[in-house]
Amino acid sequence: METLKIIKIGGNIIDDDKALNDFLAGFATLPGPKLLVHGGGKLATKLADKMKVEVKMTNGRRITDADTLDIITMVYAGKINKNIVAKLQALNCNSIGFSGADGNSIVSVKRPVKEVDFGFVGDIEKVNTKTLNVLLNNQVTPVFCAITHNGKGQLFNTNADTIASELAIGFANQYKTELYYFFEKKGVLKDLNDDNSVIENINTKSYKKFIDEGIIADGMLPKLNNCFHAIENKVSKVCIGNPTMLFQTNSKFTTIEK
Amino acid sequence: METLKIIKIGGNIIDDDKALNDFLAGFATLPGPKLLVHGGGKLATKLADKMKVEVKMTNGRRITDADTLDIITMVYAGKINKNIVAKLQALNCNSIGFSGADGNSIVSVKRPVKEVDFGFVGDIEKVNTKTLNVLLNNQVTPVFCAITHNGKGQLFNTNADTIASELAIGFANQYKTELYYFFEKKGVLKDLNDDNSVIENINTKSYKKFIDEGIIADGMLPKLNNCFHAIENKVSKVCIGNPTMLFQTNSKFTTIEK
Repeated sequence: METLKIIKIGGNIIDDDKALNDFLAGFATLPGPKLLVHGGGKLATKLADKMKVEVKMTNGRRITDADTLDIITMVYAGKINKNIVAKLQALNCNSIGFSGADGNSIVSVKRPVKEVDFGFVGDIEKVNTKTLNVLLNNQVTPVFCAITHNGKGQLFNTNADTIASELAIGFANQYKTELYYFFEKKGVLKDLNDDNSVIENINTKSYKKFIDEGIIADGMLPKLNNCFHAIENKVSKVCIGNPTMLFQTNSKFTTIEK
Repeated sequence: METLKIIKIGGNIIDDDKALNDFLAGFATLPGPKLLVHGGGKLATKLADKMKVEVKMTNGRRITDADTLDIITMVYAGKINKNIVAKLQALNCNSIGFSGADGNSIVSVKRPVKEVDFGFVGDIEKVNTKTLNVLLNNQVTPVFCAITHNGKGQLFNTNADTIASELAIGFANQYKTELYYFFEKKGVLKDLNDDNSVIENINTKSYKKFIDEGIIADGMLPKLNNCFHAIENKVSKVCIGNPTMLFQTNSKFTTIEK
């Protein structure tokens, strides 16, 4: 099977012009089919401030009311996505911007209300690879923002890490899928204050231990849950770290194993 | 040759939820390959107001500075485009949102500075139909917002009427292309106060006469220039009027002829 690389870049890369341009320059040169997923960074919060729309958070999770969904759709699918696509075209990487509504590629359902009503937040139900495959077969690179739809006309805010892992799982029957989570750190760190304390391998057993010891906590937990979900569903490789891992043989990063 | 319908809807349809939903319900049922181009309506101006970004106009033309380009990209490519795509998916019309950067489909150059520097406004140089054709052949409907790029990483604001006519011309060697400009009126009117005074046919000769007599003026001139540009460049049919023309046999509208 051919290899499909699915790469997710986080807000710290999006928010830093140089980091973004450097990443895209490398990404554009990657051979073979590939797919990019980007987060939103701080731009949505900045726009909400300017528009005097209050950003509601609960336990560090954004509550997406109608105004916030509009802002996210404008910033993620509009400004960030189209500028990335334009930059990739300048690098001779033929790309098309996607939300989950485009090509009906990611269908989600409104997150069920338990203690918290997250508002217009979608949990992914189904990935449709048909239209995406047509594009990949024609050397086109889809670029996904973190928006899905319910197939009934409603857009939803959806976690970009989850979009990346569900896409990787969705393609795992047709491609050998490799999933890369890129952020500003070199990998999952044992000591947050020591950038060189990268944990090079995490498996199901050591993951449990790291959680028990409090070494892996907070925002890293949902990211790693996405990684294990992917590796348990036929994704052949899952890595977390800095984009350098793709281009430098001696760079350290974290690999997730069963 | 197969027929490709290229339909442009204006701001008055975009701004009116019922008009938009009615149009999309009809559009979704149109058989054969089709392509939608949408304008921006008043949403960009509203957002600029909220963000306290001044909208600069000269002779009724928008000057696009960097902040305005951001707003346009957010509103046109983000909010409007993705909501239309989500609505079309709900109507079982598989669509993908496009700017000219996506698929490198519309390349433009910055409008030359003469008396006025229009800022980030692009004049179309080239339409690339390759990626679009792959999608049309797979029953996918591209939905274009009024944004192009220069192939060097810069997005541009571009007139939606012109995008529609240049797309129709770009496809004229591969399809029998039909170009429809839809707005709130029944067609080009002899008397702006009489909605039933539709001019049913305009050709090059009568166009000149209508201009000389002041019957066709103002905003209708650039629209009709786009129509004649299309009809003179192998587009087989150009019509202006209300969406009803596609679905009701007895509706009046304007047809442009050589």
